[in-house]
Amino acid sequence: MKFIAESINTSIKRIKTAVEDGDGQYIKRLAVAQQEAGAAYIDVNCGTRIGDEVEKMEWLVRLVQEVVTLPLSIDSPSPVAIEKGLSLITGKQPIINSITGEEERFQAILPLVKKYNAKIIALLLDDKGMPATAEDRIRVAQHLIPSLLEAGVPANDILVDPIVRPIGTGDTAGWEVFQAMATLKEQYPEVHFSIGLSNISHGLPMDEMINHAFMIMCMQNGLDYCIANVLDQKIMGYALIAEGLLGKDAYCGKLLKAYRKGLYPVSENHLNV
Amino acid sequence: MKFIAESINTSIKRIKTAVEDGDGQYIKRLAVAQQEAGAAYIDVNCGTRIGDEVEKMEWLVRLVQEVVTLPLSIDSPSPVAIEKGLSLITGKQPIINSITGEEERFQAILPLVKKYNAKIIALLLDDKGMPATAEDRIRVAQHLIPSLLEAGVPANDILVDPIVRPIGTGDTAGWEVFQAMATLKEQYPEVHFSIGLSNISHGLPMDEMINHAFMIMCMQNGLDYCIANVLDQKIMGYALIAEGLLGKDAYCGKLLKAYRKGLYPVSENHLNV
Repeated sequence: MKFIAESINTSIKRIKTAVEDGDGQYIKRLAVAQQEAGAAYIDVNCGTRIGDEVEKMEWLVRLVQEVVTLPLSIDSPSPVAIEKGLSLITGKQPIINSITGEEERFQAILPLVKKYNAKIIALLLDDKGMPATAEDRIRVAQHLIPSLLEAGVPANDILVDPIVRPIGTGDTAGWEVFQAMATLKEQYPEVHFSIGLSNISHGLPMDEMINHAFMIMCMQNGLDYCIANVLDQKIMGYALIAEGLLGKDAYCGKLLKAYRKGLYPVSENHLNV
Repeated sequence: MKFIAESINTSIKRIKTAVEDGDGQYIKRLAVAQQEAGAAYIDVNCGTRIGDEVEKMEWLVRLVQEVVTLPLSIDSPSPVAIEKGLSLITGKQPIINSITGEEERFQAILPLVKKYNAKIIALLLDDKGMPATAEDRIRVAQHLIPSLLEAGVPANDILVDPIVRPIGTGDTAGWEVFQAMATLKEQYPEVHFSIGLSNISHGLPMDEMINHAFMIMCMQNGLDYCIANVLDQKIMGYALIAEGLLGKDAYCGKLLKAYRKGLYPVSENHLNV
């Protein structure tokens, strides 16, 4: 499982404040903490900065790259902000978060995927709006995935995001995602799957436990990338455990190594930043 | 999910001591604690008492029934001890733990299932020994389940146990169980599935987290009974969450009710007995 660390996002109050105050030290500490916690990518999102998003994207991308070696996930509703972020990348292949089946979005983002040789998160929504059922998601995917492949994007660079909606708003919010992923994994075995994990527990108590369980169930259906709060150490522990249970960690070697390093303690849930 | 509480078992040192000392108060406190924690059944096992197992089974069954209203799971390698336990049942339909595809065991236990109208845990092993692969388990099940049905045992009373082996001893110990359960659930949709959960993590650190993840994955493949340490409150919380994610808890109603009661706190893992 590859984790995309979600916490550098101006929709989070502490980050909003840090960006307003120009508190680069906090952003850098958070980036380092996410890298040390086991993230594979650091997501950078300042989409709430109407008016100065491009400028703030530049500030954030430069700051984060000063202190971590991980590749970034450049996350914005604005293609202009995304291109600014991509243009500053000094390290490994980044992720663009995200393209969709919406015609305008697709046409705006596809050239950036090609120009910057980026991995691309492909959200399963189109001009008909947000998907409700597994069938909705599969329908969008059956158009979006072939469109990306035909445009020359390698299957290995496509991270399909089935769109997770809160379980508190409908009984089948989890089940529809499992069904969509299982079906698409069979139809497109070479693409990857990614989710925005915390959406599932939005508005509910016991949110971390709900996130753990949902991630584990998604992994059983092919999930291999996950946008999550990597500072919840148990998320990382449960991911290693699920890999062992799925036969992807010989004799639980990675799990035992992580345990010996004390990376995923049972009694403490969170690192302090 | 129905939990069969596992802790009254003389292979556990604290219980061994209580049975040796005739410490009925401890046994009763443990039975009550397991009922309050949300168990559906209380398993009683004194199979390590060579020589006086039948006498100790009687003592334990009487003690437990003094303080709880839950039905019991009568658990022994000895058909004589099982019959002693069953003969003392004053409450609801018990479980017999267990029958197997071994010819001698099958012939000894089947009459007790019928005579006492018990639910029966059907372990997927036979005279060829412990199963390794999913195919081994399916082969045993395809003989054992029809044999029970033909003998007149209702499908609803059959709890198929695929036999869980430690993940630390082989990479596919989890995966083989998932495969067997998924296949058998399709072939025999009316029977139930049960596992001895803690077997999966035997010999490994982070055992509780491994148990949680494995239970969640098994639930996705049809598991609906589980022999477990119900005093690990998170097990119960994760089971409710998994039911919600599988669309079996409308608007997470049961989960929210449990949360409001404070039954499954996030910050504490265990009840003290």
